Amino acid sequence: RSSITAPAGGTIFARMTQLATETGAVNLGQGFPDSDGPATVRDTAIEAINGGHNQYPPARGTGELLAAIARHQQRWYGIELDPASEILVTTGATEAIAASVLSLVSPGDEVVMFEPYYDSYAAMVERAGGVRRTVPLRFPDFAVDEAALEAAFSERTAVVLLNTPHNPTGKVFTREELAFIGELATRHDAIVMCDEVYEHLAFAPHEHVPMATLPGMAERTLTFGSGGKTFNTTGWKIGWVTGPADLVAVVNGAKQYVTFGTGTPLQLGIASGLEMSDDFFTGLREDMALRRDVLADGLRAAGFDVVVPQGGYFVLADAAPHGVTDAEQYALELPEAAGVVAVPASVFCDDAEASGMASVMRFAFCKKRSTIDEAVTRLVDTY
Amino acid sequence: RSSITAPAGGTIFARMTQLATETGAVNLGQGFPDSDGPATVRDTAIEAINGGHNQYPPARGTGELLAAIARHQQRWYGIELDPASEILVTTGATEAIAASVLSLVSPGDEVVMFEPYYDSYAAMVERAGGVRRTVPLRFPDFAVDEAALEAAFSERTAVVLLNTPHNPTGKVFTREELAFIGELATRHDAIVMCDEVYEHLAFAPHEHVPMATLPGMAERTLTFGSGGKTFNTTGWKIGWVTGPADLVAVVNGAKQYVTFGTGTPLQLGIASGLEMSDDFFTGLREDMALRRDVLADGLRAAGFDVVVPQGGYFVLADAAPHGVTDAEQYALELPEAAGVVAVPASVFCDDAEASGMASVMRFAFCKKRSTIDEAVTRLVDTY
Ligand SMILES: CSCCC(=O)C(=O)O
Ligand SMILES: CSCCC(=O)C(=O)O
Repeated sequence: RSSITAPAGGTIFARMTQLATETGAVNLGQGFPDSDGPATVRDTAIEAINGGHNQYPPARGTGELLAAIARHQQRWYGIELDPASEILVTTGATEAIAASVLSLVSPGDEVVMFEPYYDSYAAMVERAGGVRRTVPLRFPDFAVDEAALEAAFSERTAVVLLNTPHNPTGKVFTREELAFIGELATRHDAIVMCDEVYEHLAFAPHEHVPMATLPGMAERTLTFGSGGKTFNTTGWKIGWVTGPADLVAVVNGAKQYVTFGTGTPLQLGIASGLEMSDDFFTGLREDMALRRDVLADGLRAAGFDVVVPQGGYFVLADAAPHGVTDAEQYALELPEAAGVVAVPASVFCDDAEASGMASVMRFAFCKKRSTIDEAVTRLVDTY
Repeated sequence: RSSITAPAGGTIFARMTQLATETGAVNLGQGFPDSDGPATVRDTAIEAINGGHNQYPPARGTGELLAAIARHQQRWYGIELDPASEILVTTGATEAIAASVLSLVSPGDEVVMFEPYYDSYAAMVERAGGVRRTVPLRFPDFAVDEAALEAAFSERTAVVLLNTPHNPTGKVFTREELAFIGELATRHDAIVMCDEVYEHLAFAPHEHVPMATLPGMAERTLTFGSGGKTFNTTGWKIGWVTGPADLVAVVNGAKQYVTFGTGTPLQLGIASGLEMSDDFFTGLREDMALRRDVLADGLRAAGFDVVVPQGGYFVLADAAPHGVTDAEQYALELPEAAGVVAVPASVFCDDAEASGMASVMRFAFCKKRSTIDEAVTRLVDTY
């Protein structure tokens, strides 16, 4: 049986959510909001269901969503995309990753990636027969080790797979870091896959820089986006891949046999979201930055060593001050001990020591203020 | 670049639908209904969207849909399933196939399948590194050649992948045929994957026999189902895998990294559909049998050699009487010549001659009466 399969009991996210359900603990594990996003997104999906948009979408995605993604990339980043050939709708960013890796990584190819990394990256690279070459982002500053990164490239490097804003560290890669990565990718003629699902959640003064906007990178970069994190619709699983037409065509070839297509009426809902005013997007970011601060302050008050994240949904907090040496063990105990679920950051690593993650926990702040407050109260009371 | 990718321009279904759009031809190509199904399915999905069911579903699927699938299998087939361990919701049957094949076929494994076959089967077997061993179902009677089937098995056979009611032939495998296949699978200790998405579309006097109901088969059979074909929601992409807990767990492991999950609110809609009264399902079948007859009669009147299908969405019709020798070429000409789009059956074959499909076309009857009538009129007028 192949290495694609998740550990018994499912991915870390599924297992921690189940643990939360079983114990009644506050769930700051899996990254999903506990409230709805903009009504227009839901209302448009409902209109689509009522309006007969219930059959297969076109292979690349519905025209409405393709056009909305193109306009969104133009508005926010000045990226010009041809909706017909440079965009592909997928079943969330997860399928974007799966279809891209399955179609562009061949047996023996090497894939350079940072660790910690999102769990599906490694699973898909393995199933494609690829070999991952990981470079640690070390707690607490997550700096790019240029020498180690350079050493990870070889003549077998086919793909560089990265993520900015980064899950789980909250790192927002700088223009300089991306340029360095891009330069190495170009030198080795590698494809860059850049997972940018938290694109609207880079908190000031940090700014999201899409890899595809760097000079010379558009032609070799596939970018993964998603509606879930921006419109509080993680369960709709509407994501996308953008990039040069030749690469998008290859990924589409795989996607057609992986799922064929995805939720037609939900695509129309996400399209309406992408067309919302600038205020919505800046409001989302500012609101989420406040939640970040509440959670980070609370975790510090509860005695953790906290890194304030630059972007995304999550705070990393070292539990070493509480005598913790094994984050995975601690994650299993925390629901009973404190009534809170979090995810051990060590599970995102091949070598948790190398990234300093052995005793580090990931807490989600994409939650209602009341949820965050309750979790903080429980943790402060426990410690 | 890997063999997983569809031909340039996408799958045959995507290409033919695009051709229909471009030419304004009546689209009897890709298998999707051109009208909505039961209102309760849509209304329940809408309630779910309004009721806050917009975040990640549990890994295996929402509790409502898992329970509804279990009750459906019990009601129609007497199959008892544990919703927690023997069912997995997927992004349509396409992802059920992809996740099952990617997780259970290893490089060098052989997969026995019939041809013609649904296009994603071959793509996924290749991407998994498996080798397909196909056995023709020959136009016009599609009988199982027992000697050829037996010869296709070897000690490397890992999986038998079949489909009943069968796309594109409309064949409904009999209990005896399934028993013979099952016996060979058991002798070679192979897993059976049975795609039963047209389960409610076996037309009297033919009856759908689920592979898993045959003696001894439940323990080695994964069954693929789908809401799309039953509730006219092909664009919702809600499908499922049922089978023994150990196999379903393996497929779930893959599925979590392929898409993670799929349309939470749409899952609830499909759950409500599965709970509908027997009358709905028998009505659907009888109604579709009438459409089949209208289309089959019409194609015969237009001079094709028609096989009346026992089940499913499609009629196969040989265009040889019109001097056609190459169905693929003919499929490209037909929209201009007659204003109708159909799919060449030859594309579902490794060797179209072996199954007698070189000049055979597939026409869909899952369409409104007015759509079918218009297509028939055009074809009769042309010939
Ligand atoms: C697809 S489940 C995981 C959700 C998520 O992005 C996370 O928790 O990291
Ligand atoms: C997933 S697109 C193909 C639809 C279908 O089942 C068919 O036309 O055969």
